[in-house]
Amino acid sequence: MTKRITVKPEDQLKEIERGVSQILPRDEFLKKLEKSFEKDEPLRIKFGADPSRPDLHLGHTVVINKLKVLQDFGHDIYFLIGDFTARIGDPTGKSKTRPILTAEDVINNANTYKEQIFKILDPEKTKIVFNYKWLSKLSPIEMIKLASKVTVASMLERDDFTKRYKAEQPIYMHEFMYPLMQGYDSVELKSDLELGGTDQTFNLMVGRDLQKSFEQRPQSILTLPILEGTDGVEKMSKSLDNYIGVTDAPGDMFGKLMSISDDLMIRYYELLSPMPYNIVEQAINNIKTGKTHPMEAKKELAVSIVNVYHTDQGYEERKKFEERFSKNKIPDDIKTFTREAGTIPLFELLREMEFIESNGEGKRLLKQNAIKINNKAQKDNSFTLISGEEYIVKVGKLRMGKVVVN
Amino acid sequence: MTKRITVKPEDQLKEIERGVSQILPRDEFLKKLEKSFEKDEPLRIKFGADPSRPDLHLGHTVVINKLKVLQDFGHDIYFLIGDFTARIGDPTGKSKTRPILTAEDVINNANTYKEQIFKILDPEKTKIVFNYKWLSKLSPIEMIKLASKVTVASMLERDDFTKRYKAEQPIYMHEFMYPLMQGYDSVELKSDLELGGTDQTFNLMVGRDLQKSFEQRPQSILTLPILEGTDGVEKMSKSLDNYIGVTDAPGDMFGKLMSISDDLMIRYYELLSPMPYNIVEQAINNIKTGKTHPMEAKKELAVSIVNVYHTDQGYEERKKFEERFSKNKIPDDIKTFTREAGTIPLFELLREMEFIESNGEGKRLLKQNAIKINNKAQKDNSFTLISGEEYIVKVGKLRMGKVVVN
Repeated sequence: MTKRITVKPEDQLKEIERGVSQILPRDEFLKKLEKSFEKDEPLRIKFGADPSRPDLHLGHTVVINKLKVLQDFGHDIYFLIGDFTARIGDPTGKSKTRPILTAEDVINNANTYKEQIFKILDPEKTKIVFNYKWLSKLSPIEMIKLASKVTVASMLERDDFTKRYKAEQPIYMHEFMYPLMQGYDSVELKSDLELGGTDQTFNLMVGRDLQKSFEQRPQSILTLPILEGTDGVEKMSKSLDNYIGVTDAPGDMFGKLMSISDDLMIRYYELLSPMPYNIVEQAINNIKTGKTHPMEAKKELAVSIVNVYHTDQGYEERKKFEERFSKNKIPDDIKTFTREAGTIPLFELLREMEFIESNGEGKRLLKQNAIKINNKAQKDNSFTLISGEEYIVKVGKLRMGKVVVN
Repeated sequence: MTKRITVKPEDQLKEIERGVSQILPRDEFLKKLEKSFEKDEPLRIKFGADPSRPDLHLGHTVVINKLKVLQDFGHDIYFLIGDFTARIGDPTGKSKTRPILTAEDVINNANTYKEQIFKILDPEKTKIVFNYKWLSKLSPIEMIKLASKVTVASMLERDDFTKRYKAEQPIYMHEFMYPLMQGYDSVELKSDLELGGTDQTFNLMVGRDLQKSFEQRPQSILTLPILEGTDGVEKMSKSLDNYIGVTDAPGDMFGKLMSISDDLMIRYYELLSPMPYNIVEQAINNIKTGKTHPMEAKKELAVSIVNVYHTDQGYEERKKFEERFSKNKIPDDIKTFTREAGTIPLFELLREMEFIESNGEGKRLLKQNAIKINNKAQKDNSFTLISGEEYIVKVGKLRMGKVVVN
């Protein structure tokens, strides 16, 4: 029989540790890796996903990338769909973000999940599990026994609970039950390691504690930072419109990645790049020492990420991008408008081309030298079209068109 | 059809109110009584008992007496055996007072309960119910929904929880679940009124709140004071040995009742007497104005209470008591000892008669003039028995014997 776990424990740890916030306790986890390597027994890795929000963006993939690393080392991935709570919803009706899902919703959302995560993870080696299956079967006595494993004070220590309690905002008792239920998932799965965002640290620890009181070897926990959105400031989220969706078209994905700051690029290298840690380290080093030009590094990052979600399309997008912007070459498929000769108000033309929405916008762009005709920045609103000529009109970096004069 | 509820609502309330701590809300409860009277529909009265301690003392009967009053007015009594929690026990194993009961234990204890409470309540009109029946069938989703009805802050407002939380003593989460479960009993029983000790106020209110959120007419609550034991200071309890058991022999019961202070007697009149409130009021008034001698009032109280638990034996006990103590008459069945003539150490004789256990006790009793021979208080340990004589020996009020000298 061929060995399944072939990479040395220390080497696994190096790769696993890249970009993580914490591994708790690190020594204990290393020992698990050693034992797993010795006995050639894969570790059981748990990750819980919220089935009410199945549209993933790159922020979500920080964890999924790490799962991929663990999977490639031969470990078993349990991708847990937390449908129990989703099928209850918020019984107080106060939280709009927790709608009640039907069994059908859950299956649909799970399928949407699968489509997306299987762009990263290997479907053959990933076990999709649903906690409704076991949580809905707990007896009241088992629920009471679960509740007896934790103290009220320890629950109130969770950051958000502490804040709400101090601010005298209501915390409903079932909110105390949910961390317990998801903690019990660890008992059910006998997980060796659970992954989550740093905001999940408390919940992951509950799982660890519950396993102890069920006399299991407790899971280690691995937390990953919350990814900033393309603005580099706020957490990546749909509502802030600073996200890159996993299902975004390759061109959009590439373009958004090229728009990020140099600092954020380094962060994305650490957290989103599918390249192994030594290559990533080298790349980051080359940026910092000036060996690689930031623009080049950004292109390489964008190529590697687009390739994950759209097989090998990254190379193609790089070519298009360079043709369009870097080399100032006019793309073949440029939008073309036909006009009569004469002196015209420039903004009128731009509005017709749908490059600006108002004269105000036009004025602002003029000032920024952002309106170029045949590569020459325009200074005022008047422009003369000469019969038989063609003009390449550019507004900002992204809007480009051709005007053909009769 | 004959009318079932025949006593006017205001008259019912007067009798129900006797000795209670609170009826909450009183107006609402009066309205329920009125409606019940109008429609001749009995109210549903809930009382929950802890099945792990089936040996009742008079402290427990304060509530049961009140149930009897309500029953006599025609209302339905639901005597709830809280076996759900008893069958779980304390999952943390920290509380020794909450042992795990088996189904058999519960049945045995329930039978013991019945024997005792049916000395007061009418078995035909009392419904014994067990909450394990419905609580053990709750689904996890129902449990979560229950938990969503209350806030953590409101639970922490319960006196004992507040104290423990402030003192940083652990409160386990299942302890928060128990008041909810017993509150759910009110929903299940659709109770109109729940009775309990003042220490149960919080729990009874939880029941009321849960009914509201289940869109039921919420129960009113009636709390009764915690009865002091025969010492008149501490709460009546077995462990403090200041209790009068419901199954005590009639003589013991009568004797213990005669030993209480005059102040405590008034309290017992209010809380334990089976007489209607107007008679009790009159009796208390007569004591306070000196119309009735306290000793006489105490005898009447003792007779009425003993009669409840030992049919009509109260009269008999009063006679015995008066013969033995009040009139100083020597009872016919007095224990008799035979001795040789001569001067002897008195304590040796008393030890042989099993009236004292040590010389120390003897010395103390001598000092208190509590050792009498032929009604004469003894001053020292030496006593001379004369041939052919008989001596009546009394130690304290209760120990009496006869010594016949050869």
